[in-house]
Amino acid sequence: MTAHGLRSNSMDDYPLALTAIVERAERFHADQSVVSRRPSGVITRTTLGTCASRARRLAGALSALGVREGEPVATLLWNQSEHLELYFAVPAMGAVIHTLNPRLFPDELGYIVDDAEDNVIVVDESLLEVFESFRSARSFAHVIVVTHTGEAPAGTLDYESLIADAEPVEWPVLDEHRAAAMCYTSGTTGRPKGVVYSHRALTLHSLVAALPDQLAVSAHDTVLPVVPMFHANAWGLPYAAALAGARLVLPGPRLDAESVLDLCAAERVTMTAGVPTVWMGMLAALDAEPNKWDLSELDRLIVGGAAVPRSMFEGFDRHGLTVVQAWGMTETAPLGAVCRLPGRLFESERDEQYSHRTRQGVATPFFEIRARDDNGALIAWDDAAMGELEVRGPWVASSYHGGRGADSFTPDGWFRTGDVVRIDPHGCIRICDRSKDLVKSGGEWISSVDLENQLMSHAAVAQAAVIAVPDDRWGERPLAVVVLRDGGRASADELRDHLAREFAKWQLPDRFEFMEAIPCTATGKFKKSVLRNLFTTA
Amino acid sequence: MTAHGLRSNSMDDYPLALTAIVERAERFHADQSVVSRRPSGVITRTTLGTCASRARRLAGALSALGVREGEPVATLLWNQSEHLELYFAVPAMGAVIHTLNPRLFPDELGYIVDDAEDNVIVVDESLLEVFESFRSARSFAHVIVVTHTGEAPAGTLDYESLIADAEPVEWPVLDEHRAAAMCYTSGTTGRPKGVVYSHRALTLHSLVAALPDQLAVSAHDTVLPVVPMFHANAWGLPYAAALAGARLVLPGPRLDAESVLDLCAAERVTMTAGVPTVWMGMLAALDAEPNKWDLSELDRLIVGGAAVPRSMFEGFDRHGLTVVQAWGMTETAPLGAVCRLPGRLFESERDEQYSHRTRQGVATPFFEIRARDDNGALIAWDDAAMGELEVRGPWVASSYHGGRGADSFTPDGWFRTGDVVRIDPHGCIRICDRSKDLVKSGGEWISSVDLENQLMSHAAVAQAAVIAVPDDRWGERPLAVVVLRDGGRASADELRDHLAREFAKWQLPDRFEFMEAIPCTATGKFKKSVLRNLFTTA
Repeated sequence: MTAHGLRSNSMDDYPLALTAIVERAERFHADQSVVSRRPSGVITRTTLGTCASRARRLAGALSALGVREGEPVATLLWNQSEHLELYFAVPAMGAVIHTLNPRLFPDELGYIVDDAEDNVIVVDESLLEVFESFRSARSFAHVIVVTHTGEAPAGTLDYESLIADAEPVEWPVLDEHRAAAMCYTSGTTGRPKGVVYSHRALTLHSLVAALPDQLAVSAHDTVLPVVPMFHANAWGLPYAAALAGARLVLPGPRLDAESVLDLCAAERVTMTAGVPTVWMGMLAALDAEPNKWDLSELDRLIVGGAAVPRSMFEGFDRHGLTVVQAWGMTETAPLGAVCRLPGRLFESERDEQYSHRTRQGVATPFFEIRARDDNGALIAWDDAAMGELEVRGPWVASSYHGGRGADSFTPDGWFRTGDVVRIDPHGCIRICDRSKDLVKSGGEWISSVDLENQLMSHAAVAQAAVIAVPDDRWGERPLAVVVLRDGGRASADELRDHLAREFAKWQLPDRFEFMEAIPCTATGKFKKSVLRNLFTTA
Repeated sequence: MTAHGLRSNSMDDYPLALTAIVERAERFHADQSVVSRRPSGVITRTTLGTCASRARRLAGALSALGVREGEPVATLLWNQSEHLELYFAVPAMGAVIHTLNPRLFPDELGYIVDDAEDNVIVVDESLLEVFESFRSARSFAHVIVVTHTGEAPAGTLDYESLIADAEPVEWPVLDEHRAAAMCYTSGTTGRPKGVVYSHRALTLHSLVAALPDQLAVSAHDTVLPVVPMFHANAWGLPYAAALAGARLVLPGPRLDAESVLDLCAAERVTMTAGVPTVWMGMLAALDAEPNKWDLSELDRLIVGGAAVPRSMFEGFDRHGLTVVQAWGMTETAPLGAVCRLPGRLFESERDEQYSHRTRQGVATPFFEIRARDDNGALIAWDDAAMGELEVRGPWVASSYHGGRGADSFTPDGWFRTGDVVRIDPHGCIRICDRSKDLVKSGGEWISSVDLENQLMSHAAVAQAAVIAVPDDRWGERPLAVVVLRDGGRASADELRDHLAREFAKWQLPDRFEFMEAIPCTATGKFKKSVLRNLFTTA
């Protein structure tokens, strides 16, 4: 309210809580189906309405187990309907859903559950072995198991029995600033850090993600999130789908190209989303058997989490499938930018269109961007200057759990992404590097991402990672690590010539190393720290 | 923040202010065009970027004139680019844009400007006569005139000169609860009442309006709001367009069918919105000359403000144009519900589809509905029970300016719409009547809207209004007021027979009155109060 002048008559105290999304799914989209592929490959079907009403019983059960407002409930689950029920129940009851990534190392998981002070955890039967690998790190009060084939192990609670025995709850009215969900960064360096999202943040994120020029989620969509629900809220798709009443197809653990393509075809998926590595495999499968799958309903593949090479856009275009790049981080809930072809480029040359589509995109509404150079000065939006991207907005983190990593936040309240970008005059960003991956040679920055993309455009190259290695004369010099395709052949000289078409001589890597595979993080990003250890001392 | 447990890390203090939309238009959608048709018919073109940067100067000028935070700036303008500049400048500077409807009677306008305590007003040259008709009601400190042909009259300020001479301002950071805009209800009875919208309300309204299943506003749209910018924020389209970067076509005062069709064709409009009377004329023009206009880009016509007869959906379907009904009120900012054909009806019979499309629709996200019967009990969502619609949500009014009309709000904080509805099991509403227009005969309600729709489906009938007249035996009985089409002929008996196909005998009007025209409010609604005066005493 203003101290003087006109006062708003609006219901400004109506909270932006996920409860509204859960209730909407229950009341208005009750019949919309939710499809889960189980670890065995069996398909099970339920509805948004059933998930939402079961969530009321689940909340009753969790409450009876002692879960209180503001307390975390950990999940070790795939993309499956029970995970959606927890997405609904835990925030709506005022607790905090804490999604765990089963692909992390046991010591990381142990660190995370202890740091978050998780006391209750829900585990899929197929992940019990993973759970056993870190359970000693924390004294859990209750372990709840989602079973498919057997019974819940002794000392654990059965998920279905809990729901069957519980009373449904009425959702409380929640303050929109209350914590709703928690996720740890996958951190290529250092300890994972926790991000706790408020109801307000995730609600606004869902609204913006569903907008026509963002992910465009409608009641007529069938959404298949390949991106896991344990990773940055599956890019907000579960909540956006519940909000819009879209059909959800949850693929479980099997994310190989054939399995995903089978599911897209069988369930007439209109939209899917995941990291580039998944689509790389999918493209190879499509190229091998172009007519095997009926993907006539598949409208768009949202790709994020790592730079997308032009060859991937071209490859899917050959099959009549549109790849759309998006950008985000765990700290940004995650959606920050989406790259759609703007109207002014509809009639442009293919090269110009691809050049645009390989960018990370334009910030979503209510997501502010800026970039600062080495000296802290704001860079011009001229697509030439490079600087570290800083962002702010209603669903951006302003700190980490426990106050860790404070140097990731500027004194004036922006989050430092660690991504080095160029910004074009229309505000479209292009990530040139992670700030710690930039190669600084003779005082000039060399973009490892640009080199990697050009290397990957070579027919014989499957993967490429460029790192900086210390150099007495230049400070740092680029070194390229290359994985060749099956049957592919290319020498270091040939690859250097290939790069020389696009790069100045001083920007070319001095060394090329060939590997069988490049070590990746649990979320599919190159572990450059491992490469640096391998080759810096060599 | 919660008192205990996990605390959100989200930037929850980032305000939901219209400033973000204005800055987005300036920074990311600067090149998108804004087209205005002037009163003379001349077309002028500018851009979102120019409007947004001129808004900074306009705010500087208003500030220099003494406009302070929270104070209203009244506008008496058509849909034109200057109005958009005021939509941007006034809220972003922290003041309140108060749009005036030039079609109201002078005494109503005089009452409104005095009630709102307007001290500054911006008037289009073509509306100076309207302004003179009520200016004596209020001592305005400053009158600013947008000129097209001449000079601003003595004693007034010239809009363009003010902008030319002013310094651009930096937008302040605003509390999202601050007042942003003000509009008076068009009230078919009683004095108009003021609704003051907060930044938060209009921001959330813009996001929701732009969603794919709501009005679906994208950067690739060209939006022509026929609904005036002085009426309920032009249904939120100016802000939604600025948010999405859609092209805007602002039609000025000439809203006859030919003028609107010419503009749709010439500017390749994809989406337009207005009250049914506009589209009725448009349909007649299209039926007369089906090939005159190229409307191949026109994707949807949003219709609201009054019930839409089935014949209108059928008529536009004949021309390959999709009419989508929406529902809202000044008190709801205005969007509350949109009627889209749900997937489950895609393969249904035409009758079933039309029966759905003539409903007012499903509540938008974050818009809650319920309805209560005569006894105050909540009605079942069975599409049979009737009750008064009550709503709440972030952009719904919780009071009127000055505390008037307190009986429109329930003790538990819902707004009483005055619309009597049925709600189907999917939550889709059908307005049966205005509560005060219902006919209560022998203890049973008769829907005047249902009778009107059936009357209007008769080939000879152009318009029909049904009112309740007192009856000694039954309490009330229905009376039908009918306007015949040019050349149309129908007797009272014939119309009664036509109604008898769909209605029980006791529901049929006892009297039929034929008129040349039915008196309407400034926003095109039947003035039933005038009809009651005419025929109740007759």
